[in-house]
Amino acid sequence: MVKNVFSRQSQGEDFDYFFHAPGTSPGTLRINDDAAPPKLVLIDYNAAEAQRTQLEKPEDCIPYLDSESVSWVDLQGFGDEGVMHRIGNVFQLHPLVLEDVINVPQRPKVEEYDGQLVIIAQMVVLKTSTAGFWSEQVSLVLGQFYLLTVQEEPEHDCFEQVRFRIRSNKGSIRQRGADYLAYALLDAIIDGFFPVLEDYGERIELLETEVISKPTPQTLEKIHQVRRELLRLRRAIWPQRESINTLIRDASPLISHDVQIYLRDCYDHVIQVLDMVETYRELASSLMDVYLSSVSNRMNEIMKVLTVISTIFIPITFIVGVYGMNFKVMPELEWHWGYLAVWILMLSIVAGLVYFFWRRGWFRTDS
Amino acid sequence: MVKNVFSRQSQGEDFDYFFHAPGTSPGTLRINDDAAPPKLVLIDYNAAEAQRTQLEKPEDCIPYLDSESVSWVDLQGFGDEGVMHRIGNVFQLHPLVLEDVINVPQRPKVEEYDGQLVIIAQMVVLKTSTAGFWSEQVSLVLGQFYLLTVQEEPEHDCFEQVRFRIRSNKGSIRQRGADYLAYALLDAIIDGFFPVLEDYGERIELLETEVISKPTPQTLEKIHQVRRELLRLRRAIWPQRESINTLIRDASPLISHDVQIYLRDCYDHVIQVLDMVETYRELASSLMDVYLSSVSNRMNEIMKVLTVISTIFIPITFIVGVYGMNFKVMPELEWHWGYLAVWILMLSIVAGLVYFFWRRGWFRTDS
Amino acid sequence: MVKNVFSRQSQGEDFDYFFHAPGTSPGTLRINDDAAPPKLVLIDYNAAEAQRTQLEKPEDCIPYLDSESVSWVDLQGFGDEGVMHRIGNVFQLHPLVLEDVINVPQRPKVEEYDGQLVIIAQMVVLKTSTAGFWSEQVSLVLGQFYLLTVQEEPEHDCFEQVRFRIRSNKGSIRQRGADYLAYALLDAIIDGFFPVLEDYGERIELLETEVISKPTPQTLEKIHQVRRELLRLRRAIWPQRESINTLIRDASPLISHDVQIYLRDCYDHVIQVLDMVETYRELASSLMDVYLSSVSNRMNEIMKVLTVISTIFIPITFIVGVYGMNFKVMPELEWHWGYLAVWILMLSIVAGLVYFFWRRGWFRTDS
Amino acid sequence: MVKNVFSRQSQGEDFDYFFHAPGTSPGTLRINDDAAPPKLVLIDYNAAEAQRTQLEKPEDCIPYLDSESVSWVDLQGFGDEGVMHRIGNVFQLHPLVLEDVINVPQRPKVEEYDGQLVIIAQMVVLKTSTAGFWSEQVSLVLGQFYLLTVQEEPEHDCFEQVRFRIRSNKGSIRQRGADYLAYALLDAIIDGFFPVLEDYGERIELLETEVISKPTPQTLEKIHQVRRELLRLRRAIWPQRESINTLIRDASPLISHDVQIYLRDCYDHVIQVLDMVETYRELASSLMDVYLSSVSNRMNEIMKVLTVISTIFIPITFIVGVYGMNFKVMPELEWHWGYLAVWILMLSIVAGLVYFFWRRGWFRTDS
Amino acid sequence: MVKNVFSRQSQGEDFDYFFHAPGTSPGTLRINDDAAPPKLVLIDYNAAEAQRTQLEKPEDCIPYLDSESVSWVDLQGFGDEGVMHRIGNVFQLHPLVLEDVINVPQRPKVEEYDGQLVIIAQMVVLKTSTAGFWSEQVSLVLGQFYLLTVQEEPEHDCFEQVRFRIRSNKGSIRQRGADYLAYALLDAIIDGFFPVLEDYGERIELLETEVISKPTPQTLEKIHQVRRELLRLRRAIWPQRESINTLIRDASPLISHDVQIYLRDCYDHVIQVLDMVETYRELASSLMDVYLSSVSNRMNEIMKVLTVISTIFIPITFIVGVYGMNFKVMPELEWHWGYLAVWILMLSIVAGLVYFFWRRGWFRTDS
Repeated sequence: MVKNVFSRQSQGEDFDYFFHAPGTSPGTLRINDDAAPPKLVLIDYNAAEAQRTQLEKPEDCIPYLDSESVSWVDLQGFGDEGVMHRIGNVFQLHPLVLEDVINVPQRPKVEEYDGQLVIIAQMVVLKTSTAGFWSEQVSLVLGQFYLLTVQEEPEHDCFEQVRFRIRSNKGSIRQRGADYLAYALLDAIIDGFFPVLEDYGERIELLETEVISKPTPQTLEKIHQVRRELLRLRRAIWPQRESINTLIRDASPLISHDVQIYLRDCYDHVIQVLDMVETYRELASSLMDVYLSSVSNRMNEIMKVLTVISTIFIPITFIVGVYGMNFKVMPELEWHWGYLAVWILMLSIVAGLVYFFWRRGWFRTDS
Repeated sequence: MVKNVFSRQSQGEDFDYFFHAPGTSPGTLRINDDAAPPKLVLIDYNAAEAQRTQLEKPEDCIPYLDSESVSWVDLQGFGDEGVMHRIGNVFQLHPLVLEDVINVPQRPKVEEYDGQLVIIAQMVVLKTSTAGFWSEQVSLVLGQFYLLTVQEEPEHDCFEQVRFRIRSNKGSIRQRGADYLAYALLDAIIDGFFPVLEDYGERIELLETEVISKPTPQTLEKIHQVRRELLRLRRAIWPQRESINTLIRDASPLISHDVQIYLRDCYDHVIQVLDMVETYRELASSLMDVYLSSVSNRMNEIMKVLTVISTIFIPITFIVGVYGMNFKVMPELEWHWGYLAVWILMLSIVAGLVYFFWRRGWFRTDS
Repeated sequence: MVKNVFSRQSQGEDFDYFFHAPGTSPGTLRINDDAAPPKLVLIDYNAAEAQRTQLEKPEDCIPYLDSESVSWVDLQGFGDEGVMHRIGNVFQLHPLVLEDVINVPQRPKVEEYDGQLVIIAQMVVLKTSTAGFWSEQVSLVLGQFYLLTVQEEPEHDCFEQVRFRIRSNKGSIRQRGADYLAYALLDAIIDGFFPVLEDYGERIELLETEVISKPTPQTLEKIHQVRRELLRLRRAIWPQRESINTLIRDASPLISHDVQIYLRDCYDHVIQVLDMVETYRELASSLMDVYLSSVSNRMNEIMKVLTVISTIFIPITFIVGVYGMNFKVMPELEWHWGYLAVWILMLSIVAGLVYFFWRRGWFRTDS
Repeated sequence: MVKNVFSRQSQGEDFDYFFHAPGTSPGTLRINDDAAPPKLVLIDYNAAEAQRTQLEKPEDCIPYLDSESVSWVDLQGFGDEGVMHRIGNVFQLHPLVLEDVINVPQRPKVEEYDGQLVIIAQMVVLKTSTAGFWSEQVSLVLGQFYLLTVQEEPEHDCFEQVRFRIRSNKGSIRQRGADYLAYALLDAIIDGFFPVLEDYGERIELLETEVISKPTPQTLEKIHQVRRELLRLRRAIWPQRESINTLIRDASPLISHDVQIYLRDCYDHVIQVLDMVETYRELASSLMDVYLSSVSNRMNEIMKVLTVISTIFIPITFIVGVYGMNFKVMPELEWHWGYLAVWILMLSIVAGLVYFFWRRGWFRTDS
Repeated sequence: MVKNVFSRQSQGEDFDYFFHAPGTSPGTLRINDDAAPPKLVLIDYNAAEAQRTQLEKPEDCIPYLDSESVSWVDLQGFGDEGVMHRIGNVFQLHPLVLEDVINVPQRPKVEEYDGQLVIIAQMVVLKTSTAGFWSEQVSLVLGQFYLLTVQEEPEHDCFEQVRFRIRSNKGSIRQRGADYLAYALLDAIIDGFFPVLEDYGERIELLETEVISKPTPQTLEKIHQVRRELLRLRRAIWPQRESINTLIRDASPLISHDVQIYLRDCYDHVIQVLDMVETYRELASSLMDVYLSSVSNRMNEIMKVLTVISTIFIPITFIVGVYGMNFKVMPELEWHWGYLAVWILMLSIVAGLVYFFWRRGWFRTDS
């Protein structure tokens, strides 16, 4: 059998997409060794009632799929290739869809298949212990009465509020169909970018202060770090603009006109996120300029200290050298007030130079 | 009940959009604790007469809405969630519209609903006490015979001239409908950008002088500040270009052909504002380059002072050192004119070096 | 009555558009106090004859407007609000057109009204006494048998050649209609950009020499100045591309097919102007980089002088210091050839260092 | 006969396209002297069986071309002009196609001829011995039942996996037509970019560490090298985006609807490659800024060492000079504790200066 | 008569387009005083025979124009206004066409007139004596059975190969019409850009080595020069992309379908030229960054030499100063081993400092 050589870029998992050995058959799945074991949760609801069941095996959800109540099948972790293939059978997924869902990360996109709408999205969650954020792929497969969501890992999920709204019949979600549920999850994914952006806003604000008042090499590293991460963020959000726009524009029969109005609102939020990312990138890029200028300013200051000190002492050191010479005939040395006269001369020179530098403004701290 | 966790970016309120906890139900309102209490003013006019009434409660304006006279309901401040919901009922606003109106700031846009045109705009007002400007969201809801405007705060309003024109029957405003009123307000909002831009033009002009003649770290900070604020300004004006263009292109039945000609004029002004913002941004960006070069120039000058002084004194200091040595046999020390000869030697060296530097142009102040 | 607060940006009149107090009624005119008094000249011609009349009052041109001969009404200066309103009446101008014509500068554009084509253009003239150029708005109102042109000031007019061609029946201008006249004037306006650009080409060429051979802070200022003015120039020419393109594309009944071929030629010239402006901007921007590098190069040279001098004298100054010490027991001092030996030692050190620097190429003037 | 003057840019073969002497007849072939001799392999398969034959001469494949089984003719190396012309005859190639196939490298493109689809692609393979990658042109000529591929050289081929899938009947490739084979090869070519990009990701990551911790001139050279090669990579991948898009959009009868879905997947991968290339380019560009700042930081540090040492010793060296003077009357010299007093004075000065520098933070290693 | 004031930009003739005095009548010709006298060559051919005639006067070619054989009239140099007007009459050129053909340089373009296709192209030829290239305008007027080409000067022509192909019946050119001839010349013009680009590739490669190993002010000048000339090159090739695209897209009856396939090939070459120009521009721009960093690196090195020398000698020079003082009571001076002890002290200090600098890596040549 073909040995699948899967490799993945080591660079902080930031900028890479998934790839397998060139020439591999399309639809080949890749399961990471450290992938979490799959956890399958079904939430089935209609206006009257909502139930939550943890499913043992993929086939358990078949009875729910065709009933008129909305069935949300949420799969977290895909560490078991067999289960994934059975999921593929249960939901009749095209082999390329299964590949996209599992071989993460893919570029966010929307694709329509027979009676199914497949949405690949990217979710971000702020890291709590350290600076930066996690990103995770969420795949949504929307059918008429069901929604399948596949997440890489069981943690870091921004859908808790949506589950609460279903459970407690909050808002109109229980009165609506699977398309509204898909919208609600997409909206939660997009809204999840804002806290991350807020964090970057604050970090840039701190860097602005730091870069002017006391720029250090660490500051430089931090600015570069922020630029790197904003690039990642842009790559996560940019294609989602296209995919939500596709949902609005290419009226799919699976999405009701009513939900399209809500998606328009969601699209506005994507634009806002993009807007902020671009603004922050421009600010970070401007910070780099400020940093370089600021370092030059400090060098200027150091040079001024050196120049003032050197320029004041070098001439008078020369003078004392003169009277340290051992010539037989040096009339000044014999004068009674010679020593005093030299001091007076030297003090005049110092006074003159200090006045000269003061006139040039070299003693002002700010310049 | 769901606890709504509202957060907002602290960074000078500049670059952030509104967001709530990811997953919150759409249409959820957020009222800031420090939001101003609502103030409701009705101006009702036709060609014959105009009256101004301060309304007690939202329902008071119902009788005016369907009459053929133009009713301008101006709501300033929305510190009371109950009042806002009643406004929503009186004007039959879609929940998403109410959310956009209240959860400020939103990105400027135009949306059409049944018999209503919703325009979200951004108004800027120059700060008087300090540099910079305030920005405030103004939402316009245009019906056939009424216009509802919602402002964040009661102060900083650039509509005074429009109110005056209605009151004193100045121009043709009283002969025209609610669509012309909406145009007049939009035009006032756009024209309100010009004084702010004029201020930035002057600040950039001052910085241009400063950056060449005496660049300080404060100059650097000011340039960065201007770039930041121009980014904000661009973000406020850019989407308004789209929204006014939408108003012109997508002929809504609520906007008469006549008013569209006026909107075309308003569109020209938006383009002018954008033009100036882009020009100022390029100038500010060029200033950063000039700053860096100017700092390098000053360092050059400092270095020249140091080099001239050092280079002149170092050789002659060496010479006096030579004749300070205590060797038994040093013939020069015994010569009668030795001391004088040394002085002549040293003065020749100084003269030579001064000539050398003068030839290189190091004494010219400009280079 | 409303007090019209007109303000205008002071910044060299470069980058500003006209604006009045936000909320002012559209169509309000603003007459600068220092605006030139209006001068009204009529040139009326057909293939057979051409006459030139200085008109006393606007109404004098009414009889000419409907005759089949081409009537060119040229108004220079608009310092009299009353006259302007009467012009508006005579030519039946829409209030917004009158505002655009008078409240200069406006962004160049083309607009069609009933039986009239309004073209707002921007004319540039090289300053003779100093560097830079003047820009002035020219508005053209084209009717079937007449052309009204409005210029800000009576001086700096690039239409003299066109007047000559009419007067002397040179070329085909007398055989053609008002549309050809409008083309001829537009073509003169566009061709007027070339001498200005030629001047900038020469200034950039001079700066290129200066920046490499002897960069001074003044050079920096000049580069920034050129960039500023090229921005202005681009702002003047860019919208004219659109407006001439509009004239060609949107076939107006007022413009014959024949003249459209000439406008295509005029469009080519606009593209050429834009091309040169962009090229010069890129060159000026590259010059800024060269400047910074050049300043660094000079600092390098200064540093080398300092380093060479210091490094040569510091060790030998130390040596003479050693033999200036007053220890009781210093055998070298007693030697007969001690003094000579020290000189030999010092000269060897100097020779070694000079060789070291020569090897590093520090004495080559170019590096 | 015309002497064909073929020249080729020497610059590492990186950025050049093929060209011959201006004016040469189109369709003229150019065979490099060092081109590999042609090797012709036929793989003929259907669902039931697959055979692989090494062909002696081009004409040997004629019997296979019209049979319904898929015939993949793979030509590696084209060092023999006669063979190339016979290939052209066998496959009835248009002279311009033959020119494009042989005069490598051409810009990747797709062109349709009678019953043939010609795809010019660019394949990259990571160099193993040194940094960088090889690129090689692969031309695909797709007919109804055959696919001709032409490669520059017999080595570095990323099609091995595809050959294995045919041989071992892995996946659905044997059940499908020549269009699917073309897709499979294109997909292998695109997937071949990922290992190269992974390598650049790692190199950039290493450079990021190096540039902050210890920037050397070699670092600068490496950054420039990476930027150069990313430019090459972009030039190889960018036109392939267009050509695959063309394949999807312009439905050719040679490509079944089924295969178009697979091509859509391939298009996604091209976008991902482009995405990564652009991201890496931005990172490399940002690294250049970081480098310059980092070098300035190190210069700052060197300057601080110099300034601290000079500033501390210059004043006290002056003092010892004072008491080295030989004036007759110098009271301090006679004092018993004079020598001690001078030491105390000098130590106080040093202590004061050290405190001054410590306050300014010059002893902190990071600033 | 109107005095035509023709001026032309002096700046190396690089970036300027032709212009005459604003307001001049369209169709006015400008003949440079130093323009070459016209030389008129006719090549008339069909499949059977080809003849070449040097014509005395323009009217001589009239008999050939309507015959079915292809007549190529090649005019080199236009120093005689009368001849030019007669050419205009013979070929019935529109006055604007004659102006474009003669008032060089014009922006490359394609225009269609009654039964004529006018192509303005720009030809480049590498300078042999010095760096850089000449550019020259070539105008092509294509009729049904003839092609008129107008070149500025008789030298530097890249059509020799085409003439050879006609003469020796090489390729299919003799079997084809005037449209194929026009294609062949355009193709020769475009292919003429490759040798120029190859030269720039080599110059950039040399600069890359120079900028890293030994950057001098001349390097800076050369980089700027290359950027300037690449700008010129881009301006010459960019509009030709549009014009060839126009030829392909707007099917003119004068161009057969067959020749359009060849033009598509020519279009590919234009894209390749543009591609290389853009790549070289990015490389040159990156070189400027490398230059600045490289100069900073060298300054760092100079500073290190200065700092090492100063820091080592300054402390020990202080010490020898101490023992040069003339205090009555200085116990160390009396010690027998005092002098030796001082040397030991000084050598320890030097050793310590050298170790300190060695630890910091200041002696490594690369950092």
